[in-house]
Amino acid sequence: MKILIIGAAGMIGRKLAERIAAEGGIGERPVDELVLVDVVEPAKPTGRVGAIRTAAVDISVPGASAPLAAERPDVIFHLAAIVSGEAEADFEKGYRINLDGTRDLFEAIRREHEASGHTPRLVFASSIAVFGAPFPDRIPDDFALTPLTSYGTQKAICELLLADYSRRGFFDGLGLRLPTICVRPGLPNKAASGFFSNILREPMVGQEAVLPVGDEVRHYFASPRAAIGFFLHAAMLDTAAVGPRRNLSLPGLSATVGDEIEALGRIVGERAVKLIRREPDAAIIRIVCGWAPDIEARRARDLGFQAEASFDEIVRAHLEDELGGTARV
Amino acid sequence: MKILIIGAAGMIGRKLAERIAAEGGIGERPVDELVLVDVVEPAKPTGRVGAIRTAAVDISVPGASAPLAAERPDVIFHLAAIVSGEAEADFEKGYRINLDGTRDLFEAIRREHEASGHTPRLVFASSIAVFGAPFPDRIPDDFALTPLTSYGTQKAICELLLADYSRRGFFDGLGLRLPTICVRPGLPNKAASGFFSNILREPMVGQEAVLPVGDEVRHYFASPRAAIGFFLHAAMLDTAAVGPRRNLSLPGLSATVGDEIEALGRIVGERAVKLIRREPDAAIIRIVCGWAPDIEARRARDLGFQAEASFDEIVRAHLEDELGGTARV
Repeated sequence: MKILIIGAAGMIGRKLAERIAAEGGIGERPVDELVLVDVVEPAKPTGRVGAIRTAAVDISVPGASAPLAAERPDVIFHLAAIVSGEAEADFEKGYRINLDGTRDLFEAIRREHEASGHTPRLVFASSIAVFGAPFPDRIPDDFALTPLTSYGTQKAICELLLADYSRRGFFDGLGLRLPTICVRPGLPNKAASGFFSNILREPMVGQEAVLPVGDEVRHYFASPRAAIGFFLHAAMLDTAAVGPRRNLSLPGLSATVGDEIEALGRIVGERAVKLIRREPDAAIIRIVCGWAPDIEARRARDLGFQAEASFDEIVRAHLEDELGGTARV
Repeated sequence: MKILIIGAAGMIGRKLAERIAAEGGIGERPVDELVLVDVVEPAKPTGRVGAIRTAAVDISVPGASAPLAAERPDVIFHLAAIVSGEAEADFEKGYRINLDGTRDLFEAIRREHEASGHTPRLVFASSIAVFGAPFPDRIPDDFALTPLTSYGTQKAICELLLADYSRRGFFDGLGLRLPTICVRPGLPNKAASGFFSNILREPMVGQEAVLPVGDEVRHYFASPRAAIGFFLHAAMLDTAAVGPRRNLSLPGLSATVGDEIEALGRIVGERAVKLIRREPDAAIIRIVCGWAPDIEARRARDLGFQAEASFDEIVRAHLEDELGGTARV
């Protein structure tokens, strides 16, 4: 198979590329060629895939996707986007990259399909930001998308396009509504959701972290490891079982900040817990109150997608994948 | 007020323009200027509005909407679209007119807003085609949009844009998901939904009509008169009561073909009923089975939108509005 990852320099894209390179395939199917692109040239992973190419491609430049589609990859992972905060701060940039860039890609695939008959699998990274409050305690699969950000709007529009292009047979698409990824590796960031990761990641290496909300705040999570599993599962899934509703709310863990902290104490110890400094921030509390506390994700579970069942698992995944198995606190 | 109707040559656009011209205003508020545009120049209605202008404008031509927005209408009715069958037959044309044309209009209004601060009310004609089977017997307001046509996809995308542009304050938008309009005036057409109107309209003037489905088929209807009422109500509605979910499933009548025929018999007589010829058509039966049988529309009802409560009312509205009160059979 030939695999294309668009957005391969981001956290999920990089891990996905590394995993495919390391395993030399997806599931049972060998990968001969891995093409990694992003707005900056992605790092080239080592592993068992013979041909790995990297390139800087900005899909928001009209026409930039055409050469990518013309290579006829068997599977296209489309993860490129600017994040929620940036799409909210810069209206035009958000629509140009998150909507027009995706639509140009879809159009390039359609034109290649009409020229050659090639019909790739396309796996698109959507987000639970497509949902907007008020919602029920547990959001069902057939709940309306009423995003409250431009980012969520752009993702929801791309989901609709993906379903229509798939129905038309231009590609065989799946949109994955990712839970909030936790523990995000790397440095603390200023995203409103950053603290969910910060309060685990920083104490595990002996650093203080700020908790701006109360312990009772509930949200919906999956680890980076689970996220990579989602993408690989979607790449090989029999879409006949999916039907026309191609966008899936993914399984995740519904848990409170208190659950996070208890898991940190159990797995790493009370020394780590003591590094969490409580500093309530009214602005962040207000934002986070509008986020989904739980999502049913029945269809995705029935289709074999899997996520963690406890924060203990999420903390252990971070320890194993990022810290060689041992906390430094 | 200055009013702009885009799509003023269509059935609803024409009736809306005629009604505003005849009444000289919307509700209590006088209209000074009525601008009517469509891809072909609309007819100029007579009435009590001093300044009525008409023009041929194709909003799918990039830049065509800018002069419309620059006139700063207080209310913009956007009804321009190609219909479901045409959008399905010509993929590119459907997206160009129904999506890109609308987005260009929204962008033109945004740029005018950023230049002058002007924030018009925008009322957009959406459709229950945003829903796709399977759905519950009665579709609730928070049900997912999973359209099964490109037309429904384009309408659903425009709804998302409308909500985001309204949230940002570029305009003050409302999207109206119109029920199937019945009785459509004019000639019988070949749309799959045409028979719902044909079997009432044709017998009322002594003509035969073909019924391709069984009497038990249930669907969701409103008269043209009710549709005009929806648009006028939306133009003047206090949107503070609507909140961020700006797209509304509208009230309508859930009824079977049998209900239609009984109303025809009661209001017009058995001579009219005898003009309905039953010719089952498997293709039409299959299409119609995927359509919404009933929609809850609780929010729209609470906001004061009103439709007919029986097919007797729908038949009477057609008799009064199109036939001077008397059937010709």
